[in-house]
Amino acid sequence: MAIITLLTDFGLEDAYAGILKGVILSVNPSATIVDISHHIAPRDLVRAAYLIEASYRYFALGTVHVVVVDPGEGSDRSIVGVEMEGHRFLAPDNGVLTAVLAEGSADRAVRVENSSFFLDPVSRTFHGRDIFAPVAAHLSMGLDLGTLGPAIESEALVRLRFPQPSFTDALEIVGEVIAADRFGNLITNIYERDLVPFFEKTGEPEFAIQIGGRTIRGLSSRYSSVAFGKPLALIGSTGRMEISINGGSALKFFGAGPGEEVLVK
Amino acid sequence: MAIITLLTDFGLEDAYAGILKGVILSVNPSATIVDISHHIAPRDLVRAAYLIEASYRYFALGTVHVVVVDPGEGSDRSIVGVEMEGHRFLAPDNGVLTAVLAEGSADRAVRVENSSFFLDPVSRTFHGRDIFAPVAAHLSMGLDLGTLGPAIESEALVRLRFPQPSFTDALEIVGEVIAADRFGNLITNIYERDLVPFFEKTGEPEFAIQIGGRTIRGLSSRYSSVAFGKPLALIGSTGRMEISINGGSALKFFGAGPGEEVLVK
Amino acid sequence: MAIITLLTDFGLEDAYAGILKGVILSVNPSATIVDISHHIAPRDLVRAAYLIEASYRYFALGTVHVVVVDPGEGSDRSIVGVEMEGHRFLAPDNGVLTAVLAEGSADRAVRVENSSFFLDPVSRTFHGRDIFAPVAAHLSMGLDLGTLGPAIESEALVRLRFPQPSFTDALEIVGEVIAADRFGNLITNIYERDLVPFFEKTGEPEFAIQIGGRTIRGLSSRYSSVAFGKPLALIGSTGRMEISINGGSALKFFGAGPGEEVLVK
Repeated sequence: MAIITLLTDFGLEDAYAGILKGVILSVNPSATIVDISHHIAPRDLVRAAYLIEASYRYFALGTVHVVVVDPGEGSDRSIVGVEMEGHRFLAPDNGVLTAVLAEGSADRAVRVENSSFFLDPVSRTFHGRDIFAPVAAHLSMGLDLGTLGPAIESEALVRLRFPQPSFTDALEIVGEVIAADRFGNLITNIYERDLVPFFEKTGEPEFAIQIGGRTIRGLSSRYSSVAFGKPLALIGSTGRMEISINGGSALKFFGAGPGEEVLVK
Repeated sequence: MAIITLLTDFGLEDAYAGILKGVILSVNPSATIVDISHHIAPRDLVRAAYLIEASYRYFALGTVHVVVVDPGEGSDRSIVGVEMEGHRFLAPDNGVLTAVLAEGSADRAVRVENSSFFLDPVSRTFHGRDIFAPVAAHLSMGLDLGTLGPAIESEALVRLRFPQPSFTDALEIVGEVIAADRFGNLITNIYERDLVPFFEKTGEPEFAIQIGGRTIRGLSSRYSSVAFGKPLALIGSTGRMEISINGGSALKFFGAGPGEEVLVK
Repeated sequence: MAIITLLTDFGLEDAYAGILKGVILSVNPSATIVDISHHIAPRDLVRAAYLIEASYRYFALGTVHVVVVDPGEGSDRSIVGVEMEGHRFLAPDNGVLTAVLAEGSADRAVRVENSSFFLDPVSRTFHGRDIFAPVAAHLSMGLDLGTLGPAIESEALVRLRFPQPSFTDALEIVGEVIAADRFGNLITNIYERDLVPFFEKTGEPEFAIQIGGRTIRGLSSRYSSVAFGKPLALIGSTGRMEISINGGSALKFFGAGPGEEVLVK
């Protein structure tokens, strides 16, 4: 089994994603290729960082995760290979792996420079096809990461600055919305573990959540815990607090997307 | 061979569909996963019911069809497994299998309760990942449906009420548009077999179809049977009467989508 | 290994693409199916012709490339199979292979008429499901193209008229934009080879490119060769000159899509 995941900003209107698959299968005909998404907005590194972190752990160890959101393509940014706890990642060194790297300890990182695994010639504008795809295919066949280029310190990899929640003396958490999904769920940067102090105080999640001038009381365990069309907060599938509407879209209800402040107190 | 099809309202902007595939392949690395569609509008059960019925019979016997359009997720709705004429279905018990069940006789139905096949823990908001995906993967490896939970009567499965055409004494059929496709073809709930009386009367399909204040005469055998830009009716690929425009979109031409009345007389 | 690529105007909102895959896998369970794109605008033959030409050579020899953009479906247009330099193509005879055929010399072409490889019955409106899918699956299993129907001259295949750049005595090239991609890059019909005279004159690409009332000086080797937000021209991944904006969209910047004149002098 050799799985390769693809997360790009290529969209599906063009042939770019399909071409990557052609190159991968030309090197490793038995690779299983899985699309995470190709609908990252062009150059949206934060979104890509969020989605690859939400996804990678659901794939078997040994999977090669390829992230091609690469606004610096053709510049002197590096392409890096990273091994972390049995997963392997191939990405531009532009911060798209920030959230993944925050989840564990990278075992190894290399700068991808060995052009013997690239297509020849390498175009200036489509490194996905000419570098990422063939290198990922070789990795999926068991190629050692060290063969790709010089080792680098994982601490030296470029990191994005993600908004972190702040905790006040008054037992308040000031967080924010970091993503919205297709259902209009607003995913915050507040983790379940951040809410522990509120639980400890009373044994019950007795707190209020303020967003967009409205107040939601406590955490719900399911969408249907509130009336149809009403807002609620719950712990979503990534372990973060999410703001939702039972049967509707919090994105539309609050008119609030990424960046919106969320206050817990 | 083990095929698993996916029909969801997840869209492709988020990582949800990709994550399902990761979980499936972690359980059954040799599964072949086919997307029917992930673009069902959020919670549109009718559309999901229509698409799975239009699709399932083109897959090999033994295929596991997974439908995750699940507005009651996290509520006490059941998840059910159904076997029908060699096909297997995994879906919330909310009516998305209505059209499939109308096509044949279910051989077996169970309520999916055996958590030994679920991810642990099960989140409250992503049963696709935590229940549907691993259970489907186990089914694709030959797991007997009966292992998943208690048998239930297939008659007890939730059904949606689909609009049915009505037949008048005056040899008229009052039907309606039930779906539009990307080309703007309007798919009605009138089957070819419903039109038999019209054929029998004269041996020719001598009838008029009224929609949106316009009249179409008889059935065409092909789009090009009428002038470019003109409306026609024909029997579409699902055996239903469809209203189309040669080289254009009936959806735009008539400004009429699902729910629009179609009268045959 | 048996790879089948799909390029259609089906979109992903309907089940059409998924149904094709079901039919293919029913014939050849071990086929590897790759989507080039299903987002061709309905009946856009020029776009389909461009994308299949940009893609096919990145797939292994023996791959079966299926193009179903078929405004004449149900009319008396032929379906054709073509072998060219180890690749195989299955498409309506409506010109979608024009750009592919311009790249090489077809070794063989047949009209697909042998209904023993079709589904039975063949619908009037979904030849993708009933003809293209099963025939492609049989080809992927090694079926000889000649079995499908009578040989035809590849010169007799329908060709689209693609806009060709014109070369003036004054060492000017008058070309045009033929496509835009998701990033807003404007792909022209001017190939790198067309620019050779400009290089030969001075050894440097000393020329000006005029588009949308603006002038771009010379070719850049990378997006970052110009300031952020500024326009540039470079040789794109298909060997054609492209007009781009560093960090932005030339499509929006110039308000110019396919058909826009590009003058090199």
